[in-house]
Amino acid sequence: MNYRIIGFVIGRILLVEAALLLLPMAVGLGYGESPVPFLIPMALLAVIGGLLSFRKPAHSALYARDGLAVVALAWIFMSIFGGLPFYISGDIPRFVDCIFETVSGFTTTGATILTEVEPLTRGGLFWRSFTHWVGGMGVLVFVMAILPMGGDGHGMHMLRAEMPGPAPGKLVSRMSDTAKILYGIYLVMTIIEIVLLAAGGMPLYDACIHSFGSAGTGGFSCRNLSVGAYNNPYFDIVIGIFMMLFGVNFNMYYFLLVKRFRDVFRSEELWAYFIIAAVAVGAITVDIVELYDSVGTSLRHAFFQVSSIMTTTGYATVDFNTWPTFSKAILVALMFIGGCAGSTAGGLKVARVVILEKASVGEMRRMLHPNAVPAIRFEGKPLSERNIRGVYLFLAVYMAIFVLSCLLVSLEQMDLVTVFTAVATCINNVGPGLEIVGPMGNFSSFSPFSKLLLSFDMLVGRLEIFPMLLLFAPSIWKRRLAAPQRQADF
Amino acid sequence: MNYRIIGFVIGRILLVEAALLLLPMAVGLGYGESPVPFLIPMALLAVIGGLLSFRKPAHSALYARDGLAVVALAWIFMSIFGGLPFYISGDIPRFVDCIFETVSGFTTTGATILTEVEPLTRGGLFWRSFTHWVGGMGVLVFVMAILPMGGDGHGMHMLRAEMPGPAPGKLVSRMSDTAKILYGIYLVMTIIEIVLLAAGGMPLYDACIHSFGSAGTGGFSCRNLSVGAYNNPYFDIVIGIFMMLFGVNFNMYYFLLVKRFRDVFRSEELWAYFIIAAVAVGAITVDIVELYDSVGTSLRHAFFQVSSIMTTTGYATVDFNTWPTFSKAILVALMFIGGCAGSTAGGLKVARVVILEKASVGEMRRMLHPNAVPAIRFEGKPLSERNIRGVYLFLAVYMAIFVLSCLLVSLEQMDLVTVFTAVATCINNVGPGLEIVGPMGNFSSFSPFSKLLLSFDMLVGRLEIFPMLLLFAPSIWKRRLAAPQRQADF
Repeated sequence: MNYRIIGFVIGRILLVEAALLLLPMAVGLGYGESPVPFLIPMALLAVIGGLLSFRKPAHSALYARDGLAVVALAWIFMSIFGGLPFYISGDIPRFVDCIFETVSGFTTTGATILTEVEPLTRGGLFWRSFTHWVGGMGVLVFVMAILPMGGDGHGMHMLRAEMPGPAPGKLVSRMSDTAKILYGIYLVMTIIEIVLLAAGGMPLYDACIHSFGSAGTGGFSCRNLSVGAYNNPYFDIVIGIFMMLFGVNFNMYYFLLVKRFRDVFRSEELWAYFIIAAVAVGAITVDIVELYDSVGTSLRHAFFQVSSIMTTTGYATVDFNTWPTFSKAILVALMFIGGCAGSTAGGLKVARVVILEKASVGEMRRMLHPNAVPAIRFEGKPLSERNIRGVYLFLAVYMAIFVLSCLLVSLEQMDLVTVFTAVATCINNVGPGLEIVGPMGNFSSFSPFSKLLLSFDMLVGRLEIFPMLLLFAPSIWKRRLAAPQRQADF
Repeated sequence: MNYRIIGFVIGRILLVEAALLLLPMAVGLGYGESPVPFLIPMALLAVIGGLLSFRKPAHSALYARDGLAVVALAWIFMSIFGGLPFYISGDIPRFVDCIFETVSGFTTTGATILTEVEPLTRGGLFWRSFTHWVGGMGVLVFVMAILPMGGDGHGMHMLRAEMPGPAPGKLVSRMSDTAKILYGIYLVMTIIEIVLLAAGGMPLYDACIHSFGSAGTGGFSCRNLSVGAYNNPYFDIVIGIFMMLFGVNFNMYYFLLVKRFRDVFRSEELWAYFIIAAVAVGAITVDIVELYDSVGTSLRHAFFQVSSIMTTTGYATVDFNTWPTFSKAILVALMFIGGCAGSTAGGLKVARVVILEKASVGEMRRMLHPNAVPAIRFEGKPLSERNIRGVYLFLAVYMAIFVLSCLLVSLEQMDLVTVFTAVATCINNVGPGLEIVGPMGNFSSFSPFSKLLLSFDMLVGRLEIFPMLLLFAPSIWKRRLAAPQRQADF
């Protein structure tokens, strides 16, 4: 591993985090709050980041595995430093809870250990939601957008590790331009949502919080009852639609900008995404219609909740814990499907589900007709064996981590549904689960061990497993690359 | 599809089923019960089977897909006819329940719709458990053992479809000899268990029932409280050990017979099977120690339950529904792992779990060291890409059927744990789940639709997915094979 270049990149990222803290500090000052909880971590970040990235190393090649390590380490350090403001201000008294909350923020999960969010400082609450916005599109993408680092090669490794989906691509030839385009679209869409919410009468502060939460598909709210607190159908519909939009592959918006409408219209993943959502909304609407006064209300709640869970945001307008089993089972299934690749959403991603379906059906066809070998195509291109195996591998490792996490969390004396959905909601970056961790519940009753394990699961979900898992490989910590002939010791 | 040869093979199987019904009829007569409930289905089976297999078709080639179809259809027909005795005797008043119970018997699941088993006729109860014994080793294996059908080629296709595991092989060159060896070992082990149980004081009838149940890893008992009714540690230990033994790949016993001890000692699957079981027993013993009067009792219950669930038998000595969440979570995880390939157990099979683990770790190693491509070996032989993809495919389709079944069963107004474990216990051929379908509960409260769906899941689990799934492919019903160049329409 090339420690110097990794230190350099992480140093840069810490400097960026110091700068990001300026915004919540300013908001807090506007509400007459002390800037100290932000100044201390900013000073720490500036010193450590400055030291690490003081001089660019001469040898700046970054191998694939170094790229994975940078991403994993960057997210871990950012979460630890990002939790300091909550600890210093006293918003969250226990440090393990600060880490959980910050990981939940950056990974856009939205799971919380807070029983009440309304008593928090305005600055702290703003930072909590702002981490969603930063984490949604990716921290390294952000760094690349604003601080181009020369060579393009290592950028791609890191973008691959940080961008969700089976095979993210560059939109334009230069990596940093791709990052700028993506962040530009993201920023504009967020501002539109803020304006629409404010226009409907939501206070500007709240509009920012909920727009950050839906843009990053995170789900932190500034109200204890989440979006349901406003009891305003207009907000439900605006936020519901924007969550769906932020769950779409951002390449689609770029295609729309450059008038490549055919690429959008023909996207298999996009069609599958909307069809799954529509079927789920229809089924839940029918299932819950008896609980509400009209079909319209039931449709609105079903749409909002499907949009919220499928995009792995986690906002709630009602306590779906009280819904019938069928609706709850649909929501749990949607958690695992997740949003589109290349969006800010979590889960397995619709693209992977479509590829799994196509590859499996193709393989079964081959059993019937051993001589007919139809190539499996996705988004108009044939899928290589390597791609398909990559997706199968992803599924297998994802399930293995899920099962092991469930076993470890089940050591807590909680019911099986809580344990199962707590792990599901964290690994899929959703936020709320069922029972104790339902939309009106929280994660405060878990032990510190479970909180750290669930934090790990959130990072596993956000970074799509491998960067986090490879940190455990002894060989990644070696200074030099093992000779290719030698057996790897992972 | 070659309808004539398929009809011929199925005809033979129905004749065998007619003969199998003689045994429970004789038992019933011994208890002074009427032979009519058995005579009617026997007559039906003899006539239909006789007509179908009256003349051997000249063209007896059986393609792979025909083999799959034979297996699937044979199991469906056997279950329908096999349910008739319960219906005619009045043991089970509703026909859909008779089908559920018989599918559960043949697939060695052991899930029941009966709230009480003790009032049943002795003959009916014997037939119910005897289906476990027949279904455990496989119906077609049995047919091949006693009625060799000439050409060896089609035997292999069918054996592949019926024998659990990723790649079953022949022990000796002739298929029918392999079948005879397997059934011989099976019979001798069953008799030893009957003798041991009877020697300990269990009535001979009960000893037969419980030996059939553990040999087939089925789990039907003749007592409402399952094995727990005897409250006899000796029975717990004998049945616990025999369940474990019947969960081992039968090839191992053949190797022992021919003194190939090294092959047994080096079997990776066998080691993994025992290690997983030992770890589970240890963890559960510690977790439940407070519930019982001594460590010994807690160890005995933990061993019995791990052996019962991992081998997918489903007997119970205690109501593990009342155990702590951690123990329940372990048991649910064991349901999915299941026993060894080539045993009578269900689940994914230990061999597949080991292959998935090795393939995934190998793939991740390759991410770190792209040039080092270590071949993945299992049981001393390198695994082909095709093998590995087959196992990944199996996992993906298994999970998909599991999730869809859960969604459909969740339409019943039952809690999520019941729904989840009902499907898990059926698709893995275990028997009991948790909550309503716990070891002291049953499946009587499900709707006919759910009962048929769960019956389908049991067949999917027992026949390892593909025979059942391919019945839905339109192309399998075509008379001729499509030209190899043409696109399959599945």
